[in-house]
Amino acid sequence: MALKTAKQYYKSLEGLHPVAYILGEKVENVHEHPLIKHMTAAVARTFDLAQDPEGRQHLVTKSDLTGEDVSRFVKFYTSPDDLIAKVRMLKFLAQRIGGCYMRCTGMDAISSVGIELYNCDQKHGTKYWPRFLDFVKILQKDDLVLFSGVTDVKGDRALRPSQQKDPDMYLRVISKDNKGIVVRGAKIHQTGSLCAHWGMVVPTREMRESDKDYAVAFAFPTDAEGVVHVYGRGTLEARAMEECDLGNVEFSKFAPMVIFKDVFVPWDKVFLCGEYEYCGDMVRNFGNYHRHSHGGCKCGVGDVLIGAAATAAEYNGLVDNKGSINVSHINNKLAEMLKVTEAIYGCSIAASVESTRTPSGIYNVDPVLSNTSKLYEGKELAEVIRMMIEIAGGMVADVPSDKDFAHPEIGPLLKKYLKGADSVSTEDRVRIFRLIEKLAFESRDIVSNIHGAGSPETHRMTVLRNANIEEKKKYAKKLAGIKETK
Amino acid sequence: MALKTAKQYYKSLEGLHPVAYILGEKVENVHEHPLIKHMTAAVARTFDLAQDPEGRQHLVTKSDLTGEDVSRFVKFYTSPDDLIAKVRMLKFLAQRIGGCYMRCTGMDAISSVGIELYNCDQKHGTKYWPRFLDFVKILQKDDLVLFSGVTDVKGDRALRPSQQKDPDMYLRVISKDNKGIVVRGAKIHQTGSLCAHWGMVVPTREMRESDKDYAVAFAFPTDAEGVVHVYGRGTLEARAMEECDLGNVEFSKFAPMVIFKDVFVPWDKVFLCGEYEYCGDMVRNFGNYHRHSHGGCKCGVGDVLIGAAATAAEYNGLVDNKGSINVSHINNKLAEMLKVTEAIYGCSIAASVESTRTPSGIYNVDPVLSNTSKLYEGKELAEVIRMMIEIAGGMVADVPSDKDFAHPEIGPLLKKYLKGADSVSTEDRVRIFRLIEKLAFESRDIVSNIHGAGSPETHRMTVLRNANIEEKKKYAKKLAGIKETK
Amino acid sequence: MALKTAKQYYKSLEGLHPVAYILGEKVENVHEHPLIKHMTAAVARTFDLAQDPEGRQHLVTKSDLTGEDVSRFVKFYTSPDDLIAKVRMLKFLAQRIGGCYMRCTGMDAISSVGIELYNCDQKHGTKYWPRFLDFVKILQKDDLVLFSGVTDVKGDRALRPSQQKDPDMYLRVISKDNKGIVVRGAKIHQTGSLCAHWGMVVPTREMRESDKDYAVAFAFPTDAEGVVHVYGRGTLEARAMEECDLGNVEFSKFAPMVIFKDVFVPWDKVFLCGEYEYCGDMVRNFGNYHRHSHGGCKCGVGDVLIGAAATAAEYNGLVDNKGSINVSHINNKLAEMLKVTEAIYGCSIAASVESTRTPSGIYNVDPVLSNTSKLYEGKELAEVIRMMIEIAGGMVADVPSDKDFAHPEIGPLLKKYLKGADSVSTEDRVRIFRLIEKLAFESRDIVSNIHGAGSPETHRMTVLRNANIEEKKKYAKKLAGIKETK
Amino acid sequence: MALKTAKQYYKSLEGLHPVAYILGEKVENVHEHPLIKHMTAAVARTFDLAQDPEGRQHLVTKSDLTGEDVSRFVKFYTSPDDLIAKVRMLKFLAQRIGGCYMRCTGMDAISSVGIELYNCDQKHGTKYWPRFLDFVKILQKDDLVLFSGVTDVKGDRALRPSQQKDPDMYLRVISKDNKGIVVRGAKIHQTGSLCAHWGMVVPTREMRESDKDYAVAFAFPTDAEGVVHVYGRGTLEARAMEECDLGNVEFSKFAPMVIFKDVFVPWDKVFLCGEYEYCGDMVRNFGNYHRHSHGGCKCGVGDVLIGAAATAAEYNGLVDNKGSINVSHINNKLAEMLKVTEAIYGCSIAASVESTRTPSGIYNVDPVLSNTSKLYEGKELAEVIRMMIEIAGGMVADVPSDKDFAHPEIGPLLKKYLKGADSVSTEDRVRIFRLIEKLAFESRDIVSNIHGAGSPETHRMTVLRNANIEEKKKYAKKLAGIKETK
Repeated sequence: MALKTAKQYYKSLEGLHPVAYILGEKVENVHEHPLIKHMTAAVARTFDLAQDPEGRQHLVTKSDLTGEDVSRFVKFYTSPDDLIAKVRMLKFLAQRIGGCYMRCTGMDAISSVGIELYNCDQKHGTKYWPRFLDFVKILQKDDLVLFSGVTDVKGDRALRPSQQKDPDMYLRVISKDNKGIVVRGAKIHQTGSLCAHWGMVVPTREMRESDKDYAVAFAFPTDAEGVVHVYGRGTLEARAMEECDLGNVEFSKFAPMVIFKDVFVPWDKVFLCGEYEYCGDMVRNFGNYHRHSHGGCKCGVGDVLIGAAATAAEYNGLVDNKGSINVSHINNKLAEMLKVTEAIYGCSIAASVESTRTPSGIYNVDPVLSNTSKLYEGKELAEVIRMMIEIAGGMVADVPSDKDFAHPEIGPLLKKYLKGADSVSTEDRVRIFRLIEKLAFESRDIVSNIHGAGSPETHRMTVLRNANIEEKKKYAKKLAGIKETK
Repeated sequence: MALKTAKQYYKSLEGLHPVAYILGEKVENVHEHPLIKHMTAAVARTFDLAQDPEGRQHLVTKSDLTGEDVSRFVKFYTSPDDLIAKVRMLKFLAQRIGGCYMRCTGMDAISSVGIELYNCDQKHGTKYWPRFLDFVKILQKDDLVLFSGVTDVKGDRALRPSQQKDPDMYLRVISKDNKGIVVRGAKIHQTGSLCAHWGMVVPTREMRESDKDYAVAFAFPTDAEGVVHVYGRGTLEARAMEECDLGNVEFSKFAPMVIFKDVFVPWDKVFLCGEYEYCGDMVRNFGNYHRHSHGGCKCGVGDVLIGAAATAAEYNGLVDNKGSINVSHINNKLAEMLKVTEAIYGCSIAASVESTRTPSGIYNVDPVLSNTSKLYEGKELAEVIRMMIEIAGGMVADVPSDKDFAHPEIGPLLKKYLKGADSVSTEDRVRIFRLIEKLAFESRDIVSNIHGAGSPETHRMTVLRNANIEEKKKYAKKLAGIKETK
Repeated sequence: MALKTAKQYYKSLEGLHPVAYILGEKVENVHEHPLIKHMTAAVARTFDLAQDPEGRQHLVTKSDLTGEDVSRFVKFYTSPDDLIAKVRMLKFLAQRIGGCYMRCTGMDAISSVGIELYNCDQKHGTKYWPRFLDFVKILQKDDLVLFSGVTDVKGDRALRPSQQKDPDMYLRVISKDNKGIVVRGAKIHQTGSLCAHWGMVVPTREMRESDKDYAVAFAFPTDAEGVVHVYGRGTLEARAMEECDLGNVEFSKFAPMVIFKDVFVPWDKVFLCGEYEYCGDMVRNFGNYHRHSHGGCKCGVGDVLIGAAATAAEYNGLVDNKGSINVSHINNKLAEMLKVTEAIYGCSIAASVESTRTPSGIYNVDPVLSNTSKLYEGKELAEVIRMMIEIAGGMVADVPSDKDFAHPEIGPLLKKYLKGADSVSTEDRVRIFRLIEKLAFESRDIVSNIHGAGSPETHRMTVLRNANIEEKKKYAKKLAGIKETK
Repeated sequence: MALKTAKQYYKSLEGLHPVAYILGEKVENVHEHPLIKHMTAAVARTFDLAQDPEGRQHLVTKSDLTGEDVSRFVKFYTSPDDLIAKVRMLKFLAQRIGGCYMRCTGMDAISSVGIELYNCDQKHGTKYWPRFLDFVKILQKDDLVLFSGVTDVKGDRALRPSQQKDPDMYLRVISKDNKGIVVRGAKIHQTGSLCAHWGMVVPTREMRESDKDYAVAFAFPTDAEGVVHVYGRGTLEARAMEECDLGNVEFSKFAPMVIFKDVFVPWDKVFLCGEYEYCGDMVRNFGNYHRHSHGGCKCGVGDVLIGAAATAAEYNGLVDNKGSINVSHINNKLAEMLKVTEAIYGCSIAASVESTRTPSGIYNVDPVLSNTSKLYEGKELAEVIRMMIEIAGGMVADVPSDKDFAHPEIGPLLKKYLKGADSVSTEDRVRIFRLIEKLAFESRDIVSNIHGAGSPETHRMTVLRNANIEEKKKYAKKLAGIKETK
């Protein structure tokens, strides 16, 4: 089959029965829940677009493992071109979804884990790499959705995993036998976990020998026994619960905490177990790939931010008779917005060009450039959003509800008084303000800009550590006429 | 009486029966509505604090009109010290309320209108000034809450009031007789209108002779016949409706649209009617005063932002044994946050020092400095908020609900896994993330930073027009050795 | 006499014979040297302006010590109004000099030292305070110019004074007897030392008991035996040496290193000797005062930057027929430039308003606000300068010399081809580019923006340490509903 | 021959006798003049490095025209890989030269002109393209240095070429006959004109029919009759004139004005003459290519800025025993510096990847990405430089001269007192401060960051015009649920 339709995707979810809690209630048919279904729709859209001629070019590729057409979301990055194609695909999708569609976490995870499993097998004689290829083949064959579980809850930030008072603050192996292992812990900010068929746990940091029990990677079905998904509350629940004033009329995001209550994992899905020296590189690979992913998707979202701002200006009446915005400070702001979003994109493309081959055949992105991209997202994208609000105007703050518009007495008054440019209906004008509100105030999106794929301080340190400062000092000393003594 | 207690304030609201719609429903006892009462509580807190020894120094002053102790919120600014005291009062209150308490709009309105009424009487022989003083005396005597109605809905932004297709897009006089006038139109973003006893309409822009019908200022009770308040939806309604996960446990903000359906205003409450040449200065005065007000209150909110970030860092375990944050990048960010909030405050203090006396005896703030303050709020305060999120960490995005914590099965798991520093309860840690979420994502607060008291472009132009560029050119030419020919 | 004329100031310099080296040569009549005389002219201008009716209001005040009219440059700050007046005076002067006139260092030094001498006498029974008052009376009576010597050369930055391999890396007492003390060391960046009659050494940092020999403050004539001034090279020497292409036609800056080759200081000019516990506060007082001074002078320079940019735009032809700049991005940049310069000024004014009285009667500025002001100078003023260049255009880079203009063959060609707006002579256009070049590229001015009065990191830490973070945490916790347990 | 050695390059200059004026004097042997020779050395270094194994990979390529090895500086861009190779070459060179080596202007000119000549021939039946290929073959065969002459002096900025009072404010054809054309005008900021064998004039803006005489492109030897080079004065002439305190000990930059006093150009070197419709695209091509070039070279210079700052920190004693900087705010600044320089580089790489083929076979860079790169150079690189100064410390302002160090009396004192870390000689410490001074204060370099390859406002407008805003609006409208009516 290799490529699912959206319909097949929805069908496949019916067979899953994850344990999920949302706002204090245990939820059955969770994929239909108003707080979940808008992200499921976003994932479904990625299946739809793979069937579309333009989308297919971005989303479908050939498997290195089987030679078949497969989704790019389940393929290893085996060339710089793969990495470029990924960035472009994510931008393409984000322009059409206006937010997160979660499949990149699994895509980034397989390459980041894969690189190290190959290395581990070479050194320790383990058999993780072929076992892992079998798993990836399953993903490819059934066009499955995988999410990655990286971020542990971490407890006291000043302590290592094995130093925590409660040993479960990082996910760990609590027992093993000849069938498999049992794990306990919790992963947080698990974007779209309930939209996926499988999850894959990746260690969240480097580990030392004393942290050996925490050096574990494995795959699990999202409804495996003992796995509990707890919905993390965002800012705009009321809209989705009432199904009105949505902003983005189709798509949204959620990010549960996933708790592992002593979950059993059979050995054929265990991809690391105790070889602690690979944890650091695994998560660093993942971080670098995922910051690179953001370069594509956040530029796509940026296009929506820019488009929304420009539309609001048009609807406010600030265009000339050719439809071009004729207010110079708005044009200036649009250019500044583009400057940031294009830098985010450009640095990810460049990180692909400057990628390097690892022994596994998988290509690693340039860490300096991919982290530079993320740093612009982490800081300057907030200013892009602020400029969008500045262009749109105060109405973003407090538009009355669709329910008010539907009211027989005040509805007509609102339509009268919230009218902008003559050629635009009040309803459309309100729609664009709602979209802007959603883009600016959906907490999970905004916080992801800052903390997604690691926090800015991590990106800064990654840039610094991977830049060759000593070489740069040599250039400076040479030009200054300083003779190196060593 | 002159100074109400909080209890008396609540009591006084019982006598008001404004027409109000919230999310599609007409609401009776509106002051008790969950989306309204948290702002009423903020206003009540200002009455409380006026009874408190420390608060009294900020909130209570002597009336120039009667010599009695009155609330500073209903006193004209008749000295630079009054203006300094205002800024300090607003900061004091904002530190304790963490957001808006809405009384500054009325306070700023009376001085900005007053200056021009005095000028108008001098030139046109009208009697607005003594009539206005009578109104202010009532406010002082009964310690009443006044809101100002400045911002019209404006329709097509490229057209003047009298050019709009629908003539009601700016509030206007539709008829007058010997008893009074009848007005029609709508004012938007009317922060806390339902917490006030009275409103005062101020023109939203300069007017020309053709716009004469729009040159109107007047006071009206918030429950006057024909006045309709329509709640403008913000981001976090679900929290207030469910009374959980509030963030700021006591206080919040709302900003309705106030529609005037042919409202009658008796002459003794009409303070401008056709004298269009005063509109521009009235609203410019108001703008400058109100940006100056933001200097105090947003610095106070800034202190809460900084305090919340520092608390989150502490709760994450990032303090030394003396309780000082020991992560240098966090300390650096706190210093940067202070830099912005103190500049906002400092420029408002300086705008007070450099204020100038008008013929009415009321002092006008320095417009360059007050608008400079607002420009920092409009842009850099967004970065302060972003830094707060950066310090706090990703948990701001998606903490499970209090309702999850209360659930017998998952509540204990959440308490276990969301624990941070050992000495802090999980519940308190969650509380600080909720506060940060509220501070970062309550749309009316954030949009007010940008668009409150006019939009940044207005502030920029006000700075430019009031700075003496020609004088500065003279300094440069002189130093360059250029002889001025004129 | 109390107030010197410029002529008297020049006359008084004739009596001084400091040992000075400039670019490898020992220089006699140093005050006439082309690299020195432009700063002497700046100082002379401050004497001139004290005689001018407008300038007098800024520059002349009454002595607390004698009741006589004295220069504000030699008066203690004994009220918030004194501090406001200082900021305004410095702005007034900088607008007219376009750069540094060096007298503020001495002014700031006397108050910062004075506060601690009073405290020291109270605790240790020393007699520094009356001795110091006698010295200040001399300064007042003869209207003398004092410079402060704060910054030591410091050697290895990671080591304290007493830990340095070479004990002279911080200035120290090497011997004392009943007549006085002998000191050795070097102070660097001694702006305008050769324009002053006296210098006053202030410790550069806090000291511990082990650093006791370094805890020394004293006054000395600039030509005292053993004092050597070594000119520090800046960027534009060729201009001053050739006396052409100057930019600022009258004024400039220099900042020598001052070396103390075992200099004897009599006891009546020694103001601290071993009481190490006052060093930290002395230099912190000085830092806070001096950052506060920058608030005035750099805003004045900012006015020149803005005026120069606006003049260049005019000369490039970018004005309407009323002379107003009609290019929106330039107006926008001018507003942004004002935003920064006014914030620098405003925070210094506010730091004066929020000053506090010390036991000596001298007022200390608010450290948070004065350091906030300096932080804007340290970072954002660079952007103001960049915007000036952006507005002016590429011509700032590489205008041919006055000597080319004077050349019979190419002079006429240059006049033809470098013509801008028709109404402006090419010569005047070139003059404004030269001024801009001087304002943007005179290294001592630009580096002073960053490192003058301490480095940004110091300012950041001063802001952080003086802001009450614990109080702000209390506000946040209270609003979040957290009960303080302690 | 195809590839010159540095020696051959120097030799070839001997045959050129351009008319040149420097600081008011007509100069013979101009290539040896102290203000010229440091840039000639930079160009010579590019020849040297082409002989070096590592450099050869960057600098030498195969000619599309002849199949021979040629310098990349005289090759058309006929693939995305060519464009990537260019960016990397420029970075490689800038790291080793620390500034400008001027050859990119000619390289960018040939491709930008070539594209339009091909188009012109197709439409008008002209024969420019083959004629131009002949010229490029000469450049390739003799490995010649070409500079481009783009920027006219422009007179009144509000007027078009044909509207200027003086018709020579843009370079124009004043007569033509069957042998060739005669041109008059002046090009300004002609970086390194005197280091080149040939120049090529390119129109500076779009032209209309009325500006036809200004629509001219041609090549000329730098010593053609009537061509006058007038040196444009920078900030640090004294250093080069005295050959001391240079900072960059080998290399520097200059940028003369080149005046065309009725210069005859034979037809075989005329590449456009009256076909005004190609001027706009020619200069836009050039602009986009040249901003793309800056992406490489300024990142290379950025590496020197970062290296210099890190070296200064080391020399100040701020490293641990492994030689790593142990001051967190400095590391943080280094990361921020990298963020900017890598974004500049990354966007140029991405602009290569997203380049498009033109009918001529030459590839055009993506204009949005190349202009985004330049916008970061135009603004944020100034902050990188400011951070370099902040890290280095105040010593950048005013180090005494080498001549002082050589003085028998004060030399030893300076060596004593300007010592930093124990392991570093005072001389080396001073050298690094000098380099930093040069990097921060050489006006031609700094102004080039802002105005080189057009001014930031041009870059902003290019970004805006080339970004498809209408498409972005469509994305936003679709997501908001707005049905497009058209």
